[in-house]
Amino acid sequence: MDFELAEAELLLGRTPAVLRALLSGLPERWLRGNEGPETWSPLEVLAHLIEGEKTNWMPRVRVIYEQGEAGQFAPFDRFAHLRASEGRSVDDLLDEFAALRAQSLEEVGALQLTPADLGRTGQHPEFGRVTLGQLLATWTAHDQAHLVQLSRTLARQYREAVGPWQAYLSVMR
Amino acid sequence: MDFELAEAELLLGRTPAVLRALLSGLPERWLRGNEGPETWSPLEVLAHLIEGEKTNWMPRVRVIYEQGEAGQFAPFDRFAHLRASEGRSVDDLLDEFAALRAQSLEEVGALQLTPADLGRTGQHPEFGRVTLGQLLATWTAHDQAHLVQLSRTLARQYREAVGPWQAYLSVMR
Repeated sequence: MDFELAEAELLLGRTPAVLRALLSGLPERWLRGNEGPETWSPLEVLAHLIEGEKTNWMPRVRVIYEQGEAGQFAPFDRFAHLRASEGRSVDDLLDEFAALRAQSLEEVGALQLTPADLGRTGQHPEFGRVTLGQLLATWTAHDQAHLVQLSRTLARQYREAVGPWQAYLSVMR
Repeated sequence: MDFELAEAELLLGRTPAVLRALLSGLPERWLRGNEGPETWSPLEVLAHLIEGEKTNWMPRVRVIYEQGEAGQFAPFDRFAHLRASEGRSVDDLLDEFAALRAQSLEEVGALQLTPADLGRTGQHPEFGRVTLGQLLATWTAHDQAHLVQLSRTLARQYREAVGPWQAYLSVMR
């Protein structure tokens, strides 16, 4: 599928409501349960999404938009959030994410990006040349990837409880 | 994690709102896009969940509750929905699913299941002896499994659009 900015904004804009519908009010053991060692709980995923709003997505959009290939992406610490979620409630994290995402989308809108702008290029430290459109598509897909992770993590809390039906549930493997 | 009926009811009860937040108002090409041959679009997943409410979950709960191991599960046609979703709008499907799920949960509540009831057994045509608690846990995990599928399907529409970032997005593989 080709990238359409309006569609990406629509998808990015609804993630806070999806997260709230899925997670707000869940018992703590569901919010803190993970998939095993070195995996993240729902609260840690939320904190990672917050970190992305603060230090990854819009800062990189601005680097490409303002500096092009001369600009440098700040490194994204994909584990910073593991400290950031400690002691915070799910609603607190959901509220912060919703506010940051709304602000991000306001900033995207203010750029009034044209189709030509989506072809603007920047330098990724590993991949080399990337476009603004690719960055925005990645942001959108990254949300969905973490929704995949959240529902998979919730499902796996019942790995034992489903008994023999485990054989029918590929999500458990 | 051990099975707790109240938690399962809480999770099952929020699935309609999660689906609505994720899918209502999405462009048709996102609602009808799948992951390739023999895979389901978001609309087909919705229709499958509707089919499950009608012919699978509560009917099986009743078989175990009322007939125990003497009862027989009606076969569940996991492909019946592929015809059922044709020509229907996403909001129409979301509304039907929400109404059916609310009714299912009302019926579960009316049974006033005790912890002992969760140990009641039935006969699965392939697995043999299963418990009511295992069935209810499977119903709950099955929702999450399809939320995994939906977000994965959405993410994969941008498999090309993300360009080199595909290497960082395991959801694309």
